[in-house]
Amino acid sequence: MYIEEVKKSLNLPERVYIFDTTLRDGEQTPGVALTVDEKVRIARKLDELGVDIIEVGFPAASKGERSATSKISSLGLNAKICGLARVLKEDIDAAIDCDIDYVHTFIGTSPLHRDYKLKMSKDEIIDKAVFAVEYIKDHGLTAEFSAEDATRTEFNYLCKICKAVEDAGVDKINIADTVGVMIPSAMKLLIENLKKHVKVPISVHCHDDFGLAVANSLAAVESGAEQVHVTMNGIGERAGNAALEEVVMALTVHYKINTNIKTSKLVGTAELVSGLTGIKIPPNKAIIGENAFAHESGIHVHGVLRKAETYEPITPDMVGHKRRIVLGKHTGANAIRSKLKEYDIEMNEEEFKKLYKQVKTLGDKGKMVTDADLRALALSILGKAEKERVKLKGIAVMTGENVMPTATVKLEIDGKIKTGAKTGVGPVDAAINAIQSLVKETADIKLDEYHIDAITGGTNALADVFVVMSDKNNNKATGRATREDIVMASVEAVLNAINKILMIRDASS
Amino acid sequence: MYIEEVKKSLNLPERVYIFDTTLRDGEQTPGVALTVDEKVRIARKLDELGVDIIEVGFPAASKGERSATSKISSLGLNAKICGLARVLKEDIDAAIDCDIDYVHTFIGTSPLHRDYKLKMSKDEIIDKAVFAVEYIKDHGLTAEFSAEDATRTEFNYLCKICKAVEDAGVDKINIADTVGVMIPSAMKLLIENLKKHVKVPISVHCHDDFGLAVANSLAAVESGAEQVHVTMNGIGERAGNAALEEVVMALTVHYKINTNIKTSKLVGTAELVSGLTGIKIPPNKAIIGENAFAHESGIHVHGVLRKAETYEPITPDMVGHKRRIVLGKHTGANAIRSKLKEYDIEMNEEEFKKLYKQVKTLGDKGKMVTDADLRALALSILGKAEKERVKLKGIAVMTGENVMPTATVKLEIDGKIKTGAKTGVGPVDAAINAIQSLVKETADIKLDEYHIDAITGGTNALADVFVVMSDKNNNKATGRATREDIVMASVEAVLNAINKILMIRDASS
Repeated sequence: MYIEEVKKSLNLPERVYIFDTTLRDGEQTPGVALTVDEKVRIARKLDELGVDIIEVGFPAASKGERSATSKISSLGLNAKICGLARVLKEDIDAAIDCDIDYVHTFIGTSPLHRDYKLKMSKDEIIDKAVFAVEYIKDHGLTAEFSAEDATRTEFNYLCKICKAVEDAGVDKINIADTVGVMIPSAMKLLIENLKKHVKVPISVHCHDDFGLAVANSLAAVESGAEQVHVTMNGIGERAGNAALEEVVMALTVHYKINTNIKTSKLVGTAELVSGLTGIKIPPNKAIIGENAFAHESGIHVHGVLRKAETYEPITPDMVGHKRRIVLGKHTGANAIRSKLKEYDIEMNEEEFKKLYKQVKTLGDKGKMVTDADLRALALSILGKAEKERVKLKGIAVMTGENVMPTATVKLEIDGKIKTGAKTGVGPVDAAINAIQSLVKETADIKLDEYHIDAITGGTNALADVFVVMSDKNNNKATGRATREDIVMASVEAVLNAINKILMIRDASS
Repeated sequence: MYIEEVKKSLNLPERVYIFDTTLRDGEQTPGVALTVDEKVRIARKLDELGVDIIEVGFPAASKGERSATSKISSLGLNAKICGLARVLKEDIDAAIDCDIDYVHTFIGTSPLHRDYKLKMSKDEIIDKAVFAVEYIKDHGLTAEFSAEDATRTEFNYLCKICKAVEDAGVDKINIADTVGVMIPSAMKLLIENLKKHVKVPISVHCHDDFGLAVANSLAAVESGAEQVHVTMNGIGERAGNAALEEVVMALTVHYKINTNIKTSKLVGTAELVSGLTGIKIPPNKAIIGENAFAHESGIHVHGVLRKAETYEPITPDMVGHKRRIVLGKHTGANAIRSKLKEYDIEMNEEEFKKLYKQVKTLGDKGKMVTDADLRALALSILGKAEKERVKLKGIAVMTGENVMPTATVKLEIDGKIKTGAKTGVGPVDAAINAIQSLVKETADIKLDEYHIDAITGGTNALADVFVVMSDKNNNKATGRATREDIVMASVEAVLNAINKILMIRDASS
């Protein structure tokens, strides 16, 4: 309601164009380097998502950049394909050679950039910018001009260079907050003033050094900016760029401004970018993070179960996400009851209290309680739990140079001793293969996920192994073990999950 | 300059109070549960950092919460110690029993909360809130009242409940954007209007569901709010809360408003909170992330080396951080030259071109080039590199249940064959122990860091092992290896680092 009120005083554009620079500025994240094929996969995904412009790279920088740009340009995507170029003939030629639609050319305009980096006068910089824009337009391409470090540039000079490139025929002018030093109210003022002098559409490019990239982008839109530069997941140099998913969802939900983005594809796109760049999505990342729609505390779960809107601003499926009720220290009784109902487990009040207490105790120790854990706890309270049907009686694992990693395992399954040996690509793989082959007659249980948390410290640091296993009836269970010996931790986690699956099968048969 | 301009029209407070809720709202992050000792460690660190108020927990929720609150309250910290309570006598009693200075009481005020969660009328809610505030004040404590979901509450009713608690003697009123649905311009308007009706200091509590928590907090300050609720690293329910480090740095640098925070302790505090909660700091997190002051691209490194301000908004030491020049795909010649100078390595232009090309090639393949890698590459171009002095000739490693993990290693060191066996806590530890003992006569090289990237996939996924080793003269080198067999990957990485150290020693002797 407050947003509706404030919107009355704003001059919002009807449509905001999404200029995605995940493949250029995003790829400049230290340590990230994408191959041509990876760039192609991300470009296709961004196109399906519906971004308007894809900035693919900086063709002058390397052969790899040029071949990625040419390749993506040849795919026939709906999005316009753009390449970055300094205001230099050779840079622009390199971009043009990639057969793209759109060139984004830039030069620093602030006193710091003029005096220390470029060592050029104000007029020289204007001349170079005008040359670049004219050169791009002479080749029949769309030209976007960026004033780098615009937010630390004197307003009069910024206006002058903008008007000069406008006269030279530029299609869009981009105001770059290169070092992320704006605040929203100042950005709003700057764009408002600039629009009094410049007619071509204004774009902004914001960095997140103070956590304000998204807010600054939206502030520019509040003053009529018609385009934003964004990256998926907010990756980029230093603290990164304005995050596409946050800007788009705020535009859609709060401002009710159209973009071309299919919001239900946001999470899928975020996951692809994260997977290929290796920059993980933080659990508490807005919109796309694992916890964005997760609830643990009793008060919140209670509210969400009654009416999701009490503690959720939008529905998870709007962005391709899922709600997650997490059990742990802050869990209330309501969350546990809803889980039991989901799994058709009935218990009386006394039994329930016991279960509730056990969940809280695990939570107080800092453990997360998965659904399978809850079911196993419940079954054991109801007396429906068998003892562990599979027990480790002995194991020897060996590996080395010119040694095929091999494991010999002795298990007691339902009281009977079984032994067997298997090889694998490494000692863990060999051990798990041996266990699975011995258990197979009892139940065909496969490993769905194997996860070792990053280990940092000495080689005697604890390894935390987490597995997800399932049988053919899709009974899924997790297993976890923490030990100094990574092989033995893996074996313990796998046996733990296998026993849980057998328990659940026994209870439901 | 644009910020100075906009500040003329603002009515900023001189001092903003930092209400830290890392231990309460931050701890409600799904999967996070801190023990009493961990809460104590974080509270001490927050106190050294200089926060004004520490919200320690929700005493009514559990025994653990009560003992943490009492314990921290007894430490005699400078910060005021606060506990959360619903507007219920028993909740407030639980808080009072912990012997704290300050109670933070709350109730939902929005139609959604009234109708679906609380099932109470507007007047009932006001009565409960007034009761709670009076009850806290009767016990001589500071009372802060939060209107939960205030930003979705009708303005007239919000004013009414605020005025009622003000009459009841409340010390501060907190406006909670519980579901993170505000935009800065609307928050500015809301606080501006509210301050026309309410005299006690206003606080805000913002969530990050659209990535706007920090901006909304600052917008409230622009309208005169004198306190912000924040969490370290922005952890909290769903997408988390406004990040302390971002809000404080924006207040300090942009608004020039005083807080009591010693900003040079920000990174240290962030690391402690991340370590104990297990919520990793994303590399591109503003202010505190590993990449916040890292530079890889040629253009940026060039600028930063000439004058840091061109691409850095603040100096890294202001927040206790370090600048990092990363070599990789986007590296330019300037970064490499500055590194060579740092290590006193001279080469002619032809040799330099060779080196530059090798760095770019590694970068194009997605590899990061560490300083030691660069030195090793340079030495080998200069013909100063020995061949690998230590070679693996054979290894056998074994582990199991009731088997002491053991490794037998055969190395060729400077042409001579040596063999030896060692045990360890696991197979990796045993293998590294065996190698170190054989190399010891040549050089006493110790393992400083051992790191395995998280492995997700099957047990045949690649394990990426990264080690840092050093000798007594503090020659440091890194080694990396990626293989399916985690033991063999570790062995390869360690030998790689050992050979680099020997090469650097030989070159400098």
